[in-house]
Amino acid sequence: MITDLRPLRFDNHSLIILDQRKLPNTETWIPIPHSEALWEAIQTLAIRGAPLLGFAGLIGVYFSLLETDNEPDWMNRIDILRSVRPTAVNLASEVTKAVRILSGISEKQQRIDECLRLIKTAEADSIKECESIADYGCSLLQDGDGLLTHCNTGSLASIGIGTALGIIKKAYFSKKNIRVYHTETRPLWQGARLTAYELMKCEIPAVMVIDSAISALMASGNITKVIVGADRIALNGDTANKIGTLSLALSAHYYRIPFYVAAPTSTFDTQLRNGSEIPIELRNQQEVLMCGEKKLAPSATKVWNPAFDVTPKELISAFITELGINP
Amino acid sequence: MITDLRPLRFDNHSLIILDQRKLPNTETWIPIPHSEALWEAIQTLAIRGAPLLGFAGLIGVYFSLLETDNEPDWMNRIDILRSVRPTAVNLASEVTKAVRILSGISEKQQRIDECLRLIKTAEADSIKECESIADYGCSLLQDGDGLLTHCNTGSLASIGIGTALGIIKKAYFSKKNIRVYHTETRPLWQGARLTAYELMKCEIPAVMVIDSAISALMASGNITKVIVGADRIALNGDTANKIGTLSLALSAHYYRIPFYVAAPTSTFDTQLRNGSEIPIELRNQQEVLMCGEKKLAPSATKVWNPAFDVTPKELISAFITELGINP
Repeated sequence: MITDLRPLRFDNHSLIILDQRKLPNTETWIPIPHSEALWEAIQTLAIRGAPLLGFAGLIGVYFSLLETDNEPDWMNRIDILRSVRPTAVNLASEVTKAVRILSGISEKQQRIDECLRLIKTAEADSIKECESIADYGCSLLQDGDGLLTHCNTGSLASIGIGTALGIIKKAYFSKKNIRVYHTETRPLWQGARLTAYELMKCEIPAVMVIDSAISALMASGNITKVIVGADRIALNGDTANKIGTLSLALSAHYYRIPFYVAAPTSTFDTQLRNGSEIPIELRNQQEVLMCGEKKLAPSATKVWNPAFDVTPKELISAFITELGINP
Repeated sequence: MITDLRPLRFDNHSLIILDQRKLPNTETWIPIPHSEALWEAIQTLAIRGAPLLGFAGLIGVYFSLLETDNEPDWMNRIDILRSVRPTAVNLASEVTKAVRILSGISEKQQRIDECLRLIKTAEADSIKECESIADYGCSLLQDGDGLLTHCNTGSLASIGIGTALGIIKKAYFSKKNIRVYHTETRPLWQGARLTAYELMKCEIPAVMVIDSAISALMASGNITKVIVGADRIALNGDTANKIGTLSLALSAHYYRIPFYVAAPTSTFDTQLRNGSEIPIELRNQQEVLMCGEKKLAPSATKVWNPAFDVTPKELISAFITELGINP
């Protein structure tokens, strides 16, 4: 059993990442030597997952410190980094928090040292947060539960065992008698490519469904709880997460199945009153129109391709964070 | 503008079909010379769509009459034909109806002539039914409507302009100011491959979404009506249709968007009290795991792959049939 699927390694000040675009077919590690390479890796989802993006953001800050001594240029690099993917709050908030601390330090080497310390702290904190989320999440589960999750929220999406998938893994390894279901997660197949891969590596039996089969699956009576992650949570509890989460929540609501959101408290954006204020990333329609080299629809087809949707608070049974259930 | 996309031609007692597996990339017509070829074409979805399967079933009966003089062998061929795809009622019911009539005729050539007459009548009836469904459906639409449909329910799924998509086409060509949205329809992409193709041929502007984006699309306020087809409708109104229909219905229910089912009355199965009695076809998991030659998930991944789901009557605003709205 492999529990340490850590998707990046930052050692001796150099970064290599597991190229998640190539999973599950090949396990390719690629070096990320500078800011531009990191921005591109984030934009193309070689590295992804809200908590992991927060951590990668800190490494982006570190790169930017090495790359320029000019303050406006630094801020420019920080602005690009912060906005490469706009929906997950973790990227922008971790970067902003670090820049606030580092801006108070005038000496370059001290800034760099402090940034390395922030990275180290974030790593340790993230591992602990994941464990804590998993413990609280497990307290909600019973033997016999059929659990459905979406996208990938495990070790490949975080530093640690993950959020929603972390709970599922911990429940399984603590010998809870659970059944695991997950979606394929169109258009970028994070369920099929990453969650199926991660569960296979952990030797956890699971069943996958296409995204549109989730309602039939719930109607069948096989699902007793839905657990998903989050990319950004507004003050009122409205939650942005991978496109399709809202469909899961609506089905769970109709079939009276508890619907849980698992995320570190850093996912709450206290600047936003409700979900309508969460910026939703619209991605290229080619992601939907092509599957590898295969054309799925006529070339002229127009596609609306939001990467996330917003689930209203009223559809969410509880939030599972490192501080507890609905802290 | 091309309105005649008829997906099969049965002339001089020979059948050729437009191979829908190859659309939209190539328009390939293939000859179907005998029963076995027809069964395979139906099973692999070279020919598909509930109303069209009913018509293809009659041609299958015709082939079986030519192929054997032995009554038990004939019934055996009929049984195979009837059960190649179990969910759409049209295939089994058209075949059963024809066999009942033909069994009353003892002379072989008379049987064959009567079968050809049944095919001719079914063709004319289907064209008229589609027109009538489209007229009744259009009476429910207003200028400004945003219409969402699923799978393919147009000319490629019927003899005529189609059911749900027939309504949309007729509304557009009668100059109603409508906006058209459709899903891609995993796992076999009937929306991306066939509906996008059919709308393109008809020069009707449309926007496609992945199946899991339907809830976000409804939440955005862009959808005012959902119209889908049906494969089998139980006596109480529970409706089996392409997998994902139930998710559309649940989202429409939550957002108070009218949800219409358009189908000929032959889709009602008066033998079944409710949806739990409708047989749901489970298809090979390779349909989900592969996209052409591309492997989407680890090979050992287990998939639950039902081709249809059942939408309970309470989620359906009205049925649109050739006899009227909720006849």
